[in-house]
Amino acid sequence: MKGTVLYGPRDVRCEERPDPKIVEPTDAILRLPATCICGSDLWPYRGIDPVTRPAPMGHEYAGFVEEVGSEVKHIRPGQFVVGTFFASDNTCEICRSGYQTSCVNRQPGAPTGAQAEYVRVPLADGTLVPTPDVPPDDMIPDLLAASDVLGTGWFGAVAAEVGPGKTVAVVGDGAVGLLAVLASRLMGAERIILTGSRNPSRQALAREFGATDIIQERGDEAVARVKELTNGLGAHSVIEAVGTQEAMMQAIRSTRPGGHVGFVGVLHDVQIPGNEYFFSHVHLHGGPAPVRRFLPELIDLIWQRKINPGKVFDLRLPLEQVAEGYRAMDERRAIKVMLVP
Amino acid sequence: MKGTVLYGPRDVRCEERPDPKIVEPTDAILRLPATCICGSDLWPYRGIDPVTRPAPMGHEYAGFVEEVGSEVKHIRPGQFVVGTFFASDNTCEICRSGYQTSCVNRQPGAPTGAQAEYVRVPLADGTLVPTPDVPPDDMIPDLLAASDVLGTGWFGAVAAEVGPGKTVAVVGDGAVGLLAVLASRLMGAERIILTGSRNPSRQALAREFGATDIIQERGDEAVARVKELTNGLGAHSVIEAVGTQEAMMQAIRSTRPGGHVGFVGVLHDVQIPGNEYFFSHVHLHGGPAPVRRFLPELIDLIWQRKINPGKVFDLRLPLEQVAEGYRAMDERRAIKVMLVP
Repeated sequence: MKGTVLYGPRDVRCEERPDPKIVEPTDAILRLPATCICGSDLWPYRGIDPVTRPAPMGHEYAGFVEEVGSEVKHIRPGQFVVGTFFASDNTCEICRSGYQTSCVNRQPGAPTGAQAEYVRVPLADGTLVPTPDVPPDDMIPDLLAASDVLGTGWFGAVAAEVGPGKTVAVVGDGAVGLLAVLASRLMGAERIILTGSRNPSRQALAREFGATDIIQERGDEAVARVKELTNGLGAHSVIEAVGTQEAMMQAIRSTRPGGHVGFVGVLHDVQIPGNEYFFSHVHLHGGPAPVRRFLPELIDLIWQRKINPGKVFDLRLPLEQVAEGYRAMDERRAIKVMLVP
Repeated sequence: MKGTVLYGPRDVRCEERPDPKIVEPTDAILRLPATCICGSDLWPYRGIDPVTRPAPMGHEYAGFVEEVGSEVKHIRPGQFVVGTFFASDNTCEICRSGYQTSCVNRQPGAPTGAQAEYVRVPLADGTLVPTPDVPPDDMIPDLLAASDVLGTGWFGAVAAEVGPGKTVAVVGDGAVGLLAVLASRLMGAERIILTGSRNPSRQALAREFGATDIIQERGDEAVARVKELTNGLGAHSVIEAVGTQEAMMQAIRSTRPGGHVGFVGVLHDVQIPGNEYFFSHVHLHGGPAPVRRFLPELIDLIWQRKINPGKVFDLRLPLEQVAEGYRAMDERRAIKVMLVP
C-alpha cells in the first residue's frame, strides 16, 4: 500500500509500504477513504520533536473495517468507523471515568501510520465507534475531523467548563482552535473571542463556526484586549490550542479568578510559574483529549448535519503529494490538509 | 497596645504599638481575645520571603467589634465576628462567584498585625461574619481556626472536589493539612490518606479528624505508597498543603487521570513542568483560600459543636512570648500556637 514516512526534519515521503496485518486478536484493519495531517505532526516535521528513525505518520482516521482479530466482538467488517489516537480498552476504571487517553491499557502513539491506504487499530472494540450506516461521501471529512481535531477542540471546551452565558476566549486559530469555537457555540457560550488570528480565511471560518469577536493580538497584548472586552475581569473560560509558553501564559492571564483554562495544545518546553499561578485562582485542566468519550455524541451531531467540522479541510491533495501537504500546513497556507489515497 | 513585629529573619518581638484607629469609613476595630501564628508566617520568619522593614504580623483573627466607621452598615460594636485575610467587599462579580480573595477591591495583606490586642479590619461589611451570639470561651479557638487554617483546608478539599466514595490524599501534616483531613471527612470521603506525617501527636489528631491511613513518606516515595493503596491508579482527590516543588509534584503524581489537585500551600519557587502535567490529565485548582465563601457554613458547624478545629492549637502562650511561639512552630514542636493577649 501507499503510506507516509517521516525521515527527518522536513523530509516526509509517500512510499510503498507493507499492508498492515492483524497482530493481536483485538486488532482491526481499516481501509481509509481519506486521511489527513495534524498540527501536532508539525512538531517532528519541524525537528522540534526529534526523529530518531523513519516514522510512519498519521493518527487521525475514519474508514471501512476490512478485517478484525478473533477476539473483536463489537466491530465487524463492512462497518464504517471513526477511531481515536491512543488505543484504549474503554472498560477500565479510568476509561469509564471518561479519560480513555489515560486508559490503564492504552497504547500511546497507536495506531500510527494512518496517512496511508490502510491502518491497523489495536483494541478495536474500545477504540472504534461505528457510524449508524455507511456515510455519504460528503460526510467523510466531517467524520475524519471528529477523530482528533473536533474531539480535541470539544475536550478543550469541556475542560474550560464552557456553558450558557459564559464568555470564552480561544488561543490559536488552527483547526483545533476553530473547532473549539464551534464546540463553544454548541455548548451555549454567549460570547466567543478568537485570539491571535490574522488570516482572513481563518477569520471567516471562525465567524461561521460562531466566533463573536476576533482579535489579532497574541500573548500579553491579547490578554489586555480580552480584559477590555470583559470589564477588566477576564473570560470565564479560555481554551489553549497552541502548546507554547506564550500561549499557556496568555490563557492563564486572560481567565478571570475562579475561571477555567482548558488546554489541548501539546505543551512543549512549558513551565507554569507556581507563584503567579497560585494567585491567579484559575482552574487548569487538559491534556491529550479523550476523544473516545465524545465520539458517540459528535458522530450523532454530524449524522444529523448539525455541525460541519470538515470545513477545516481547506486543501485536498492526493496522498502521493503528502510532502506538499506538510509544506502547506507548515507555512500556514492551509488550515488542515486532507489526503486522498 | 501590645503587638507583634518581625524585624528580620528569626527576630520577632512583642512590643508596645499604637492602638489602631478607624482610617477609612468602611473600617472596623476589633479587640482580640486570642490570636495565633500561621504556617505562612514562617516564610518571612525564616527569611525565605524577604523582610525589608519591620512588619506587623498576624492575619488570623476573631474577636469583639469595638468601633466601626461611618459607612459600615452590617457590623455593629459588641458583636463577635470572624474575619479573613485579604479584605474584600463581598459584592463585586468575583466575590459573588465565590473568589473573595480575588475581589476587585481586595486588600492583599490586610488586615495585618493581628498578633496583637486590637486590629483594624478594612471593608468590614465584606470581610467579617458575626457569630449568632457571643461565644463561650472554649469555642473561641475553633472560631479563630475558621479564620484561616480551617477555611484554607476546606477550600483545598473543595478545589480537589472531595466527595462521597472518593479516596483523598493530603500532602502535609501542618494545621492546614490536618484540617483538610477534617474537611474531607465532613464532605463524605471514603478513604483519607495523610502523607508525610512522622509525628505521633499529629498522627493522633489526624486519626481523630478522620484519616484512615497515615504514611510517613514524602515526595515520590509517597506517590508510590498512594498508588499501592489505590490499585495503581492514584487518589481521586489530592490536597497540597505545603507549597514546595516536591509537595506539588507529589500531589500531581499521586492523583489519578481525571482526578483533582486542590493546592493551598503558598507556592514558593515552584515550576510546574508542562509536558509532564499535560499527560497527567489532572485538574489543578487552588490559591489563596476564599475563606469568606465558607465562613457562614464553618461558623454554623462550630456553633453546633459538630467540628472542633481548635484542636490544632497544641501550644498556648501569652502574647508577650510570641518569639517562643514562632520558635516552637519553626522547630515543629507545635502544630499551631495560640497567643493570648
